[in-house]
Formats: sequence, structure tokens, C-alpha cells
Amino acid sequence: MAGLRRVPLYERFAQELESQILAGTFPVGTRVPSIRETSLKRGISFSTVVQAYQLLENRGVLEARPQSGYYVALRPRLGTPEPDYSSDHSDPAEVSIDAVSVSLIRDTLKLDYAQFGAAMPDPALLPTARLNRLLIDCARGEESSISVGGSPAGREELRIQIAQRAFGFGSDLSPDDIIITAGCTEAVCLSLQATCAPGDLVAVESPTYFGILLALQAQHLRVLEIPSHPRTGMSLDALRFAVENHPVKAVVAMSSFSNPSGSLMSDGDKAEMVGFLAARGIPLIEDDINGELYFAEPRPRVTKSFDRTGNVLLCSSFSKDISPGYRTGWVAAGRHFDAVLRLKMSLNIRSPALPQLAIARFLESGGYEHHLRAIRRAYARKVDLLARSVAANFPAGTRITEPQGGFVLWVQLPGRLDSMRLYREALKSFITIAPGYIFSPSRKFDDFVRLNAASWSDGTEVDVARLGKLVARLLDAQ
Amino acid sequence: MAGLRRVPLYERFAQELESQILAGTFPVGTRVPSIRETSLKRGISFSTVVQAYQLLENRGVLEARPQSGYYVALRPRLGTPEPDYSSDHSDPAEVSIDAVSVSLIRDTLKLDYAQFGAAMPDPALLPTARLNRLLIDCARGEESSISVGGSPAGREELRIQIAQRAFGFGSDLSPDDIIITAGCTEAVCLSLQATCAPGDLVAVESPTYFGILLALQAQHLRVLEIPSHPRTGMSLDALRFAVENHPVKAVVAMSSFSNPSGSLMSDGDKAEMVGFLAARGIPLIEDDINGELYFAEPRPRVTKSFDRTGNVLLCSSFSKDISPGYRTGWVAAGRHFDAVLRLKMSLNIRSPALPQLAIARFLESGGYEHHLRAIRRAYARKVDLLARSVAANFPAGTRITEPQGGFVLWVQLPGRLDSMRLYREALKSFITIAPGYIFSPSRKFDDFVRLNAASWSDGTEVDVARLGKLVARLLDAQ
Repeated sequence: MAGLRRVPLYERFAQELESQILAGTFPVGTRVPSIRETSLKRGISFSTVVQAYQLLENRGVLEARPQSGYYVALRPRLGTPEPDYSSDHSDPAEVSIDAVSVSLIRDTLKLDYAQFGAAMPDPALLPTARLNRLLIDCARGEESSISVGGSPAGREELRIQIAQRAFGFGSDLSPDDIIITAGCTEAVCLSLQATCAPGDLVAVESPTYFGILLALQAQHLRVLEIPSHPRTGMSLDALRFAVENHPVKAVVAMSSFSNPSGSLMSDGDKAEMVGFLAARGIPLIEDDINGELYFAEPRPRVTKSFDRTGNVLLCSSFSKDISPGYRTGWVAAGRHFDAVLRLKMSLNIRSPALPQLAIARFLESGGYEHHLRAIRRAYARKVDLLARSVAANFPAGTRITEPQGGFVLWVQLPGRLDSMRLYREALKSFITIAPGYIFSPSRKFDDFVRLNAASWSDGTEVDVARLGKLVARLLDAQ
Repeated sequence: MAGLRRVPLYERFAQELESQILAGTFPVGTRVPSIRETSLKRGISFSTVVQAYQLLENRGVLEARPQSGYYVALRPRLGTPEPDYSSDHSDPAEVSIDAVSVSLIRDTLKLDYAQFGAAMPDPALLPTARLNRLLIDCARGEESSISVGGSPAGREELRIQIAQRAFGFGSDLSPDDIIITAGCTEAVCLSLQATCAPGDLVAVESPTYFGILLALQAQHLRVLEIPSHPRTGMSLDALRFAVENHPVKAVVAMSSFSNPSGSLMSDGDKAEMVGFLAARGIPLIEDDINGELYFAEPRPRVTKSFDRTGNVLLCSSFSKDISPGYRTGWVAAGRHFDAVLRLKMSLNIRSPALPQLAIARFLESGGYEHHLRAIRRAYARKVDLLARSVAANFPAGTRITEPQGGFVLWVQLPGRLDSMRLYREALKSFITIAPGYIFSPSRKFDDFVRLNAASWSDGTEVDVARLGKLVARLLDAQ
């Protein structure tokens, strides 16, 4: 015990500051707070701060610049481990749908990876420059009204544009039927919250988008998976059986170009589903995020267009076609409008005004339909090329969907190969994929992967070939 | 039955379009979709659409412009009722915390009302023009990276700035400890979701901000109200008794300038609360949205600065001091970081990038501290002037808080006057207030009102006088 000495305050403070510098709070070249300011705010004496800063200067952590202050010095790394996203994948035992999903989203930051994982649109097919110009106009024009207040339902300018488009595809919505959300996922979350209580049972397609599964999990809802065909979507027989024999409180469907399977329900099936759910008073939450991305006319109908009782909550967003970064979606919640509006307000008051205004201007300007026609053609081509490439490069026994819209492929691996193994091996080879594991809570699709065709470009064939070899190697090893 | 005729398709379609026009989907002067487009998208024959448009033209609903198309005509109102926010207040029987809260938010749109209701900052004290200029720079500079992807935790640029400020007030956070949210309310919602399950009991101050009560209600959590003094905040004796005798799963506190009471807990009380909650493993969710708005040095300490175990989830935002419209807040969730991050992703993936980047630039530029000093002085003055005015204009027996930060006053009406009555009568006189009713689920504060001092300006004395007369009149009548 005699060897221990009391660490003086200036040393402790220096250690604290150094650990913040290592943690990235003060990056190299940043000015650290002035001695006066630090002394005042932290309640430490002026001379203690001076001693601490001088200590760090002596150690080469800080450098003093005359008349200016102390700055974080550029110097050799101390060997402290950097935060490294890849540590997410180090422990297979810890795998969960959430963990893999977080990684999928984070991995979109790895610009040097082949990106088949997250279902992100092709940045080259987004009207980013034009949209940002419109946002700049809005930021110049409407200073006060965008800075304060407004309805939790969002900006009327955008709600009018959405209602006009909905009229175009046969679903009569008025601007007052619509609530703007932070993307389609939030729209689905609020819809679930408005229609279900914790512990309730919700029917979903099988496979279903992992974001929907995460939303159900976050709200303590139970999942009932309804068998779905990769071409024609949810089995109505199975759904009817399910609602007749289980206390189903809501149904979530992507009836047009489901994620991940790409399935499209027929108009007849949509009408029938809307009818029998309405008769039982079971709300239908429709995720129509891919509805505009059809490869051949006509636009698929939304289930909402068959809705006569306000039983359908239609959710969508502009994240796939205009901007994922603007985080702007919407919900037309029918008879659940008031409940959703209150939940939106209690969650985050309202969505930010500027992105809404910029998207409204984009829609007003009339270029949206033209833009959609161009990206529909482009995604049809990318999906076709990726499918051909997978067929050519993956081992025999691989099965591939032929979606008529959206931009993902749903691929069944041969030999019941575990997609989580492929996912981890692919990451080591700088390739991201979405393992089938995360699209079913009962792990019905462990031998599937979802591939994002939006990332297809001339060089992609090489990556598909590498992925195909990886599949072959894992197959051989099992 | 013989008198009924089958309505022809073109007439039905015309009716449908007309009802959309009345609903506001196509405002006066808007071009309606072209005949060709409508025919194609709706699957109606060309000639049917022509007939429908001609019918509406004959009725004066549409006007044809040569070479351009059909437009919604300007014409006398049909007497269809306009949407009118004031209908919200028409039925006293339907009152609920949510209904009044939605109205409070919506009423901020009524520019001709005296705005004592919502706790909105003074638009003149927001750096809106400068912030929008920074946002414009960001929109110009970073086209692709803001359009796609990124971590659910939000932009690192902003997380670095927040960590630097936290260092300034003695709470050591690294950028990797922080998750950006859509405002402080979302931060509190995610924190509750990460720490509690439906049915759990959560302790809150009494009175407490209605947004927290709505969040608890939306998540099916139960509320335990802890007596709080309008000067010194939550009673530690009561809180200790509560956690010893009830299964409290989390505590939500605004320990610095609570909304609505303005109370400030002492450093000693904060440290003690953090200690005994940590010992019992009960997470403390701190809403520090008003922490920077102190009227006298030093800045109050955040409870997080006493936290040694990661047990405190520190929530805040830039909505009171920089921009309510940008909807940008954050949470430092300690040991609940992973859970909050996953919930953020499952709710709305991430918050939009541009507002984050603009706020980060504002903070980087160093003008933030200067800005804060100016608004602290301004709000201190407004709070003082409003308090004096209430004292002078309200009947004897009125009690008024003297908050040392934030910008709301908490006023107890004389004679146990029902604040909901005052709320409704004030609306009829074009004055909004926040009735005490919405700050306690057990209706402990029905004779209180919260007044927003941020709206104080030279002309406000008149409005306070009108409100005071209204109080006197209601008192006389009871």
C-alpha cells in the first residue's frame, strides 16, 4: 500500500482529456477548450488546467499555438484499438436478427465492399443534385415557418402531392388522410402501435422484411408467418385459416413486390384479402414501398384502393426512388388516423419540414413521373443482369426469383447451405449479402440470401463470380 | 325502385374527382392528371375520362386551357365545410391528454393567437438564417454521402461536437456513446423502450411534461408520480420510498429546469439520486433539454456526470436553442447503448443527415456558446417580465414559479379554478395556454396552467391582462 500515491488533480484531469482525445471527441488538429473556459465550466482552478495542458504538451498529445490555444497534436498512434465495425461479426454465438440487421445498415458505409446486403437504391439513380437544389430554394424561402411549429401530420404541400398521386393509381386519399413519417419503417411502426397491444399476434408474409420483424419485436408483438409464394405472394387460404383459428390482431403485407421475395399479389387476391379482413375488423397494414418500382404497366393496385371501411393503413416512402437520406415517408391510416397522429406526436412531434418541402417541390415540378419511368427501366435491367450472373456463377441447384418490380433477388442456395456461414465468409471477402436467417423468426429461410441488384454495374460480374466460388467452396466443405 | 337509375361510369368518376378537389387534393389552379394518363393509370376508357372532365367543366369545377390540359377552376365555395382546427375543442366530453396535446401543437400554427400554450422557443432567438445557410453549404458539398446509408447512430460530425460540449460540462462522452434522434422526445421514447417492458412501472416527477406521459402511455407503461418541489425538484425521500416499495423499472427526470415547474435539483441531490438508483440497477432517463438555458452561472451539472456505471441515459436536443424544425436530438445511453441503437434502427433506420450536418457546422464554427449566452439573457428577461405581468394582472391568490432557467412559468390559479375551463375560454379569446390537466395522469394540477414566456414581447402585456380578466370572470362565476 505504501507504494500507492494519490494522483494529483491535474494528472487526473489530463488523463481524462487524453482519454477523450483517444475516443475521438477531439480529433487531431482540433482546438481543445481554452484554459479559462475549462476552469470556469469544470470548476477546476486555472493553474490546475494549465498544469494538465502542459503535461499533455510534454507528452506530445497537445501542442500550444501562440495567440490561439492548445490543439490536439498529430503524432504516432498510441496503439489504442480503433473502433472497428468488423468486431460486430467476430462472435457468431451472439448472432441475432437485430445484430445482423444493424451490421447490414452499418456495412453500407464500407465503400470498398461489394454491396449486395442492404436494399439501398443505386445512388446514381437518385435525383440528389436536383433535390438538394430544391431544398436550398426552400431553405432560402421559408425561414420562419420551417423553423417552428406545425401539425404533427407534416407539411400540407407534401400531403397534397401524395394525395394527387394516390388519385392517379385509384386510391382516393385527401391531404387530411395522410401523416408524414420518418420513412416507411416508422409508418409501419406507428401503424402497428395504433392497432395492436403488447402480446398481440400479427400475421406477416413468410419470408418477410427484417425491419418488420424488428418492429414487431420492439413492440412485444408475436408473429404468425403466413406461407407466401415468391411469385403470387401470401397464400389467401393460409391467411384465411390463420385469422379463423388464431387471435390475429393485424396483418402486415407487402402485396406489391414484397421484400425479399419480390412477389406480387393479383388484384383479385388483394380485393379478397381486403374484404375478408374488413369483415373481421382486422386491420391491414400495407407496406407499399416498392409499389412504384414496377417493370411493366400497369402500376399494381394498392390494397387501399379496395378499402371501403378505412381498415387499410397504407404505408410508403420516398426512400427507394428519391432519397433514402431525407427519411421521408407517410401513412394513410384510414379509421386509425387519430391514433397514428397521436402516436407520431408522442414519438417525435413531427418530421423535419425542409426534406418534406423539397420532396413536395420535386413532385410539384412534374419531373417525378419521368424520373420513375427511367429508374423502373434501369432496375428492371439490373435485376435481370444480376439474376443471369447468379445463374451463371453459382453452383447447380441454386434457385433465383424473377421479380416484376423492386430491386432485390431472393436466392435459394444449393445443399441447404447455411446463409449465416456465407454471410460471414463473404464479409471477409469484402462482400455484403443479406442472409435468409433474418427474414423469418422461425428460421425457415436459413439457406436463402437476398441480393441487392441496385448495386449492379459493369464491374459487378466479378463480385458475383467471387461470391459463387465462395458458395461452391462452402458446399464442398460441408 | 323504378325511379333509381344506374349512375354511368363517367358520372361516378367525375364525382370521385370532384370530391378529391373539395378535399384539397387538387387545390384551385392545379392541373388535374391528363386524360391519357388518367385513362392509362385508372384503367378507364379514354372517352369516359373525356366525358367526366367535360361534365366537370360544364359544372364550373374544371376549366380547359388550350394546349395545356384541365385545371381546377376558381369559383364560389360550394358551402362544403372547410377543415377547421377549432372543431377539436367543440366537444368537452372527449377531452384526453392526447387530444389536448395534439391541439397545443396544432395551435402553434395560429399566428394570430397569443401563444402561451406550447413551449416553443421565440423564433427571433433562433439562428435560423445562419443555420439554413450552413445547411445550404452542406447540401451543395456532400451530395452522395447524404443521400444514402450511414450508421443508425447518426453523423459522426455531430456526435463529435456533442461529445466536446459534454466534456465542457463534466460528462465524459465519446462520439461512440451518442445516438442521434429526431428530437429529445424520441430520445426519451427509445430510452424507455430499451429499459422497460409493457406493464412496467416508471417513476416521474409530478408535475411532469405531457410528452413523457404520452410516451409512457404509447408504450403501455404505468406511471408513478413522485412529489416534486417547484424549486428543488423531485423529493429524494419520496423517490427512495417509491423504489423501495414499488417495482420501479426506470425513472424519468428533468433535473435541470423541469417542464413545467422549472425546478432545479441541487448537485448533491443529483449525485445521491444517481447513486441509489445505480445501486438498485434502476435506469435513470434524464431529459436535459433545458440544461443549457440557465439564467446564472454555472451550468447545472447533468446527472450523467455522476454516473460511474452507465446507468444514466442522457437525452437532449437542439430544439429549444437552435431549431425546433430540424428535429435533431440525441441520447447517450450508457450500458443501454446497443439496445437503443437497435430500437432506433427498427423505428426509422436513422435520422436525416442534412439537419445533423448543418447543426454540426454551427457547433464547429464556435458561435454556439455566444448564441447561448445571448438567448439565456433574453429568456431570463422574458420569464421575469411575464411573471411580473401575471402577478399584476391575475386575481389575488395566484401563485407563480420563479424558475432559474428554461422559459416556462407554472401558475396556480386561485380558487381551485379548473384549468380546462380556462383553456377552452381562452381559445375562444384567441389565447392558447397549457392546462395543468395534461401534466399529471392523476389530475393533481387541474388548477395550474403553464405559460410560455418565450412568446413575450412588448405587446404581450395586453394578452396577459385579457387572460387575467378571463380568470377573474370564471372565478366570479363559480
